[in-house]
Amino acid sequence: MDENTSTDPLRALVLCCTLKPSPSRSSSELLGMRVLEALRGHEVEGDLVRVADQRVAFGVSTDEGGGDEWPAIRRQVLDADILVIATPIWMGQPSSVCKMVLERLDAELSETDDEGRMLTSGKVAGVAVVGNEDGAHHVSAEVYQALSDVGFTIPANGVTYWVGEAMQSTDYQDRDPEPEKTAATTRTLAGNAAHLASLLRAAAYPPA
Amino acid sequence: MDENTSTDPLRALVLCCTLKPSPSRSSSELLGMRVLEALRGHEVEGDLVRVADQRVAFGVSTDEGGGDEWPAIRRQVLDADILVIATPIWMGQPSSVCKMVLERLDAELSETDDEGRMLTSGKVAGVAVVGNEDGAHHVSAEVYQALSDVGFTIPANGVTYWVGEAMQSTDYQDRDPEPEKTAATTRTLAGNAAHLASLLRAAAYPPA
Amino acid sequence: MDENTSTDPLRALVLCCTLKPSPSRSSSELLGMRVLEALRGHEVEGDLVRVADQRVAFGVSTDEGGGDEWPAIRRQVLDADILVIATPIWMGQPSSVCKMVLERLDAELSETDDEGRMLTSGKVAGVAVVGNEDGAHHVSAEVYQALSDVGFTIPANGVTYWVGEAMQSTDYQDRDPEPEKTAATTRTLAGNAAHLASLLRAAAYPPA
Amino acid sequence: MDENTSTDPLRALVLCCTLKPSPSRSSSELLGMRVLEALRGHEVEGDLVRVADQRVAFGVSTDEGGGDEWPAIRRQVLDADILVIATPIWMGQPSSVCKMVLERLDAELSETDDEGRMLTSGKVAGVAVVGNEDGAHHVSAEVYQALSDVGFTIPANGVTYWVGEAMQSTDYQDRDPEPEKTAATTRTLAGNAAHLASLLRAAAYPPA
Repeated sequence: MDENTSTDPLRALVLCCTLKPSPSRSSSELLGMRVLEALRGHEVEGDLVRVADQRVAFGVSTDEGGGDEWPAIRRQVLDADILVIATPIWMGQPSSVCKMVLERLDAELSETDDEGRMLTSGKVAGVAVVGNEDGAHHVSAEVYQALSDVGFTIPANGVTYWVGEAMQSTDYQDRDPEPEKTAATTRTLAGNAAHLASLLRAAAYPPA
Repeated sequence: MDENTSTDPLRALVLCCTLKPSPSRSSSELLGMRVLEALRGHEVEGDLVRVADQRVAFGVSTDEGGGDEWPAIRRQVLDADILVIATPIWMGQPSSVCKMVLERLDAELSETDDEGRMLTSGKVAGVAVVGNEDGAHHVSAEVYQALSDVGFTIPANGVTYWVGEAMQSTDYQDRDPEPEKTAATTRTLAGNAAHLASLLRAAAYPPA
Repeated sequence: MDENTSTDPLRALVLCCTLKPSPSRSSSELLGMRVLEALRGHEVEGDLVRVADQRVAFGVSTDEGGGDEWPAIRRQVLDADILVIATPIWMGQPSSVCKMVLERLDAELSETDDEGRMLTSGKVAGVAVVGNEDGAHHVSAEVYQALSDVGFTIPANGVTYWVGEAMQSTDYQDRDPEPEKTAATTRTLAGNAAHLASLLRAAAYPPA
Repeated sequence: MDENTSTDPLRALVLCCTLKPSPSRSSSELLGMRVLEALRGHEVEGDLVRVADQRVAFGVSTDEGGGDEWPAIRRQVLDADILVIATPIWMGQPSSVCKMVLERLDAELSETDDEGRMLTSGKVAGVAVVGNEDGAHHVSAEVYQALSDVGFTIPANGVTYWVGEAMQSTDYQDRDPEPEKTAATTRTLAGNAAHLASLLRAAAYPPA
């Protein structure tokens, strides 16, 4: 397979799952950008797509038709070695936009290569979560499970996050400088994701 | 308050959270209709709204503007004594449409009456879940928590559901007659929800 | 049924699910005691049992034998109108002791009165959660679902909690005075649980 | 580090988290044994420990003292390249024994090598779940998140499972022959876990 012998730099794609389209400020976009920046320190190139800026349809197929803009995002997912889901927390849970993205990725179960592997096989997934308060662990649990189910590999310490104290309303984007623990966690995520993606690009999983 | 002295019949609203607009067949709509039918046996009138048929915006306010059709649904929620969330399972989790609905209900935290109670206070919530396989308990957990957070009360045995054996692909709507265990569970949910809603209509929660 | 005509005060039982036996200090015990105190303001009497102080066996029956001390706790559960699960968060999730308690309560599915209702029917459940950081919403989701499944009713705003900012290590018990938001939430939980328990004592759910 | 240059066979450890000690029959033990068998096809040696047969203390340290038998299990975890958590579903959730194991592994956050990596770093984790019905996806979500948090890497398709149709009571161990979908999923898990463990043994994650 092409990707196994490639000497191109690793690529990452951050899908930012804020509920609001640009140009609203977004804490999850900010944390997603910082993950990209940390990945660049490991020679990983990448982009961020703010999903709410696109017309993505609800569904569980690769193309829902009628102007669905998921197919273009999907191509970027398939071109990437590392997928990062950046999502806000609402009510202690992943955002509906995040769930919509995961549902679209469910279609990959039926999209396999000549040896029966999903096209997502060998890709690494990370998570970036922000909220005023409470929910980051559960959000990462939901995302890990959905993405492992559809062929992604989850690195050690696969999530970076920030949340405030219980029932507070401060935003991550209003914390300046960034809380150091989150910054350190982002660095660990980036290092681990890049290492794992490079191993899996060089040596694909066995055929299904 | 008006609703405490009313002798009008109790009202239920089922929000069907299938990903597909009408006229696609929908197992979650079918189970939702059966919950309504069972509620009618307890003198509860009601309607079902298929959310994917409306233009509901992503967001966490009561009205996102720009043609957002949530406000009309919200009025039906506020007119109801019982809210039933009917949702399919995707990847073991609630649908994105279900999450979108919960996020819109998050706005109710700021919508209070003269005594500081949310407008949702005293309303009862139930859940109806279907999937080819696996996930109903977790879906009900997510919905219970979100709805309790925004003022709904969860009855004993607050969920009815059907899922198939692991990794199967049969739909609830293709099971005819309906599995008896699900039918019995629907009856229990309806009886408990109606009983609880009638108690809470007659005697409101204390002011916050 | 006796409990429907009783004029005895309502009773609450807090099951504290800290991992550590007495006399270790416990934040979940402290928050549980504060819930009891708030309930007393609504004429609800009650006790707290620290489960780790008892020899409770793993299992899903009402009595696992061999010195199992669950049966005595179970009698207190059945004597109470309100059950409060007070649990620490570990890894964003309910404690193993909490899960052990829920599993023991699973046995109630088979314990029914003459009319087919579980003996837990009509009881109200609340949740009190503390952690250094992150996980309270998810913990309440897990507990709500398990307890609704076995016959408990969940009030509006059925949880009180405190967690610190992401990746911090302060304990709830070291916050003095208590954070006001948590105190207010405890009061709401107590008021709602007492109101709901009094309604359900006066008017039992219909037979199954 | 020794393990990076070793030519010893890969090792797996299955921790079976059934609530019942031997010699009770256990579906989760059976599925765990089948994972081991599938791993042997990839030259991975291994053992299964039934945790309920040991006196493991509740806690979040590496040794709780007083006869705690976790330290011996912990040594086996640290000797293994692959850890498989095999757990039954109770109430749609992981067993309390499973949660007890995860809490003990939480101690590994503070146990690091000279370069700041957890001793669990580079180890791969898989999950095997059985229940009469419903809950496997959520169980895997909980376990993935807890284990990624403490340094384990989750392979693509990191779970094998079997559950029956909604509200049924058949056990996995009573299905003979084993459902083919579960058998195929076990094979995929074994192949992916072995591949990933071999990559990570040969090339450790970067220092923290």
